[in-house]
Amino acid sequence: MKNEDVMNIAKKRGFLWSSFEIYSGVAGFFDYGPLGAILKNKIMNKWREYYLVGEGFYEIESPTIMPEEALKASGHVDHFNDPMTECKECLEVFRADHVIKEAIGEEVEGLENQELTEIISQEKILCPRCGGHLTHVWSYNLMFQTLIGAKGKKTGYMRPETAQGIFIPFKRLLRFYRGKLPFGVVQLGKAYRNEISPRQGVIRLREFTQAEAEIFVNPKDKSHPCFQNVAQQILTLYSADIQEVDGEPLQISAQEAVNQGVVSSEILTYQLCLADRFMEELGIPRDVIRFRQHLKTEMAHYAIDCWDVEIYTDRYGWIEVIGIADRTDFDLKSHSEYSTEDLRVFIEYDEPTTIKKLITKPDMKKFGPLFKGDAPKIMNTLKEIDSESIKQAFEKENVYQLELDGETYQLTPDLLSFEEVEETVRGERIYPHVIEPSYGIDRITYSVLLHCFAQEDDRNIFHFPVDLAPVGVNVFPLVNKDELVLSAQHIRDDLRAEGIIAELDTSGTIGRRYARSDEIGTPFAVTVDHQTLEDETVTIRERDSQKQVRILISKVPETVCNLLVKKIKFSDLEDLS
Amino acid sequence: MKNEDVMNIAKKRGFLWSSFEIYSGVAGFFDYGPLGAILKNKIMNKWREYYLVGEGFYEIESPTIMPEEALKASGHVDHFNDPMTECKECLEVFRADHVIKEAIGEEVEGLENQELTEIISQEKILCPRCGGHLTHVWSYNLMFQTLIGAKGKKTGYMRPETAQGIFIPFKRLLRFYRGKLPFGVVQLGKAYRNEISPRQGVIRLREFTQAEAEIFVNPKDKSHPCFQNVAQQILTLYSADIQEVDGEPLQISAQEAVNQGVVSSEILTYQLCLADRFMEELGIPRDVIRFRQHLKTEMAHYAIDCWDVEIYTDRYGWIEVIGIADRTDFDLKSHSEYSTEDLRVFIEYDEPTTIKKLITKPDMKKFGPLFKGDAPKIMNTLKEIDSESIKQAFEKENVYQLELDGETYQLTPDLLSFEEVEETVRGERIYPHVIEPSYGIDRITYSVLLHCFAQEDDRNIFHFPVDLAPVGVNVFPLVNKDELVLSAQHIRDDLRAEGIIAELDTSGTIGRRYARSDEIGTPFAVTVDHQTLEDETVTIRERDSQKQVRILISKVPETVCNLLVKKIKFSDLEDLS
Repeated sequence: MKNEDVMNIAKKRGFLWSSFEIYSGVAGFFDYGPLGAILKNKIMNKWREYYLVGEGFYEIESPTIMPEEALKASGHVDHFNDPMTECKECLEVFRADHVIKEAIGEEVEGLENQELTEIISQEKILCPRCGGHLTHVWSYNLMFQTLIGAKGKKTGYMRPETAQGIFIPFKRLLRFYRGKLPFGVVQLGKAYRNEISPRQGVIRLREFTQAEAEIFVNPKDKSHPCFQNVAQQILTLYSADIQEVDGEPLQISAQEAVNQGVVSSEILTYQLCLADRFMEELGIPRDVIRFRQHLKTEMAHYAIDCWDVEIYTDRYGWIEVIGIADRTDFDLKSHSEYSTEDLRVFIEYDEPTTIKKLITKPDMKKFGPLFKGDAPKIMNTLKEIDSESIKQAFEKENVYQLELDGETYQLTPDLLSFEEVEETVRGERIYPHVIEPSYGIDRITYSVLLHCFAQEDDRNIFHFPVDLAPVGVNVFPLVNKDELVLSAQHIRDDLRAEGIIAELDTSGTIGRRYARSDEIGTPFAVTVDHQTLEDETVTIRERDSQKQVRILISKVPETVCNLLVKKIKFSDLEDLS
Repeated sequence: MKNEDVMNIAKKRGFLWSSFEIYSGVAGFFDYGPLGAILKNKIMNKWREYYLVGEGFYEIESPTIMPEEALKASGHVDHFNDPMTECKECLEVFRADHVIKEAIGEEVEGLENQELTEIISQEKILCPRCGGHLTHVWSYNLMFQTLIGAKGKKTGYMRPETAQGIFIPFKRLLRFYRGKLPFGVVQLGKAYRNEISPRQGVIRLREFTQAEAEIFVNPKDKSHPCFQNVAQQILTLYSADIQEVDGEPLQISAQEAVNQGVVSSEILTYQLCLADRFMEELGIPRDVIRFRQHLKTEMAHYAIDCWDVEIYTDRYGWIEVIGIADRTDFDLKSHSEYSTEDLRVFIEYDEPTTIKKLITKPDMKKFGPLFKGDAPKIMNTLKEIDSESIKQAFEKENVYQLELDGETYQLTPDLLSFEEVEETVRGERIYPHVIEPSYGIDRITYSVLLHCFAQEDDRNIFHFPVDLAPVGVNVFPLVNKDELVLSAQHIRDDLRAEGIIAELDTSGTIGRRYARSDEIGTPFAVTVDHQTLEDETVTIRERDSQKQVRILISKVPETVCNLLVKKIKFSDLEDLS
């Protein structure tokens, strides 16, 4: 099985392994080893190239520990739950929907606990471990909880997503962007999910890395200024409609997807195109990438459209690696409500408009004598009250009762008159909508490992794109002879001085060294041989073609830079031999 | 006060601010805003240049949540405590040593709880908030605790340092380095400390970022192969001896520091030199950097030498930003013991040595009849037992009692003889020592903000080194005229295509825009003016000198790259005007 070959090599060669192995491990935690951490960092930096340099968004960094209030507002305290069931015999706990899916092959994500309990009972589903009876299904909150401070009274949680850290300081971010929509803010960092019993390796982690962008837009304008750049890009769209009739995904251009209303907006479609290009640039073949739209039943209640980028894997089937959603104004509205801070944005109209408005005018001569010192504050308060509501009260009850600082003032029609005035309005305050591409970096890294791997003539090779490979170039002295080793060391040092990760390998036959080099996906190898001592040339070998070209030692750093960074083709190198 | 000016600008312009402001904030947590996150990332990437590219170490990434067993082994569950006291009146809690220091000005870090309680009582120290009486002092564990998994039985903690994540998979790392010392492994990431009541802004965070390198060395060889490169570097060393006599720090070369034994080893001194160069490259002036050696009383019990890099600040005095310690074999030994995994390294001797060794030879003729079926396992066990101890037992008691699988076998001198043999030993298994430079990235970022800031003729300027500045270049159309704006947009886009963070600013007078640009430390500004439309030239202005030079539009991307990346001097640019 490919997954297992890859994971074995990944563990053996230092890409990734289960954490805390010497303490028998803890499910849902992985270490990135020396090569894995470089690969992951390179993937994250490529993401930054897309979203920071390309889209012009800015990155922020907020804490991973969050206070309860903020996650109450986001809905996570109440709704970030999984349905859980326990075996009455062996006391093992399970995700109810997973147990049901394994037992009867049906997808039941999104159903209520009561419904899941009924299915377990009707279908006589038993403990997958010991065959015991299962309890009723209850909700289990997936956040890791902790206490902040010495008094142990302030509840905190490890954040379930990086997004919330962007919504909370929204006012500061809006000020940074000088109050103008649209703008985008990104965050890359850890997020946490205390999974009930994760059993899928690096696919279901309790601690994982997200790269999320929150793009704040005017709800009335979901276009994208650069849409024309992607309009002809062909996407594989597995829409909700098609899923319902068990059809084949559409192969359709971005422009057509918008025209036919397959995706809900231009800006969301643009994000699908970016994700598609990104995955392709990571070396994921086109035929294992698809965009699956959320079904009505699985979509978060606040989203109006949501697409998962899915990658096919031999072991786990199609897995979600990116989610791209239109979150509407849910988050900002909710944080406004809980925090009582106004998180709306003032949108200026193209042209100021004139509206007619009723205003309330107090009769000054009567107000003074009647209310004395309270008169000014009553008059001020009246300015804030909608005149229509006062007028209606007069019509109904012939009096308007004004409550103010614990007093009630009786305002009768003889005290007030109404006047219609014209007012110029420059714009309005609105909650922006949020477009969110959310990338799961661990699953993407796993997909890159999986899909770049090949076994060819007994060689294990990671065909990483050259700019993703952890080690850029290996340097080999053909034989273990002082002059050759010394020359190889110099070449290695010169390469490092250019910022390239270069390694020296002197042990074993040259064939064995090429094989080791291929097995960690190093795209190029420079070999110092006897001829080097005569004419100052070395060979440079390409991993994928196994071809070799002879170049001058003095040209090695420049040549390797060209190959790795500028992506010049190996076949375009001039051969001196 | 400089600290306050800097923090106000930092907040206003989007470098950093207190987290969760709309929920009234939580002490000890900060957000990095759009500009702060870039600055921090650039500092971390420069760190990687030093330790990954320069030193050839590899980075790994391990989880921030750790199981209790691992932190029991590291000593954090039992010893990562602060002394705490509570006011009996207002119930506020305090760090006992801080309360004492504030009250009587004496440094009491490292004293026992009992001693602190006595000082509070003898000196009649009262609650700094309400004047109430304080309780006795007790220990408060500083780790954030949580529970892993659905059953709520597995205790976990947020890691107190990134280092432990390197020690735990040591065997895998050793294998990656093919079993050979020395080697270095680094980790950059979040660490956590549930401070009792942090009141020092970004200086005392509950969640912070560390960059740590763990360098595993042969305890018998603490030299460094590249020491000659740094031998003449002058360091400001505030040794423990000098602190005790209240003297002035030494200004001494690295070579002299080793020769005179001021620092305990060459490799530790080499690390001080790296840190010194790093801080200087970040723009920290030499006169606010010093290396302070830990006093015997404050040093962790397992360390044999430890130096803090300290930076002077107007608000907090000298603050520790980096710790550089020789942790000896404490961590690996301790994890070996708790996990029962052998974390030693086999060190090959230069030459195999021959040692004389006593071996125990059972008398086969007597063994068989006497012990029957047990004879083989007794003989196998004897091979593992030191012959000297058997010999001694014979001398004392004329019998050796062998306990095996619950049985006791009486071995008498007639059953065994001893023979001296020669054995060739190729090497030995040892615990490596660990040299650890540990960088506090948040405090370093704060130091950079503080020490790069200046007020000059009413201008606020961050004099960041060009390669650290968050925005690389601003582009201004001199006036808000379509052709000029369009041209400026093109220039901005061309710069972005080169991966440079470039911004367009069209609002306000040109003077105001230069001021805004200086206030966020943008090193260069390109201005499109009327002449641009005639001859395709623009001006480029340097932040620090305020000088301007006229160059061709077509040369802008290359010129800016040269200035930012290759650090070519502005004064070397050719002026076309």
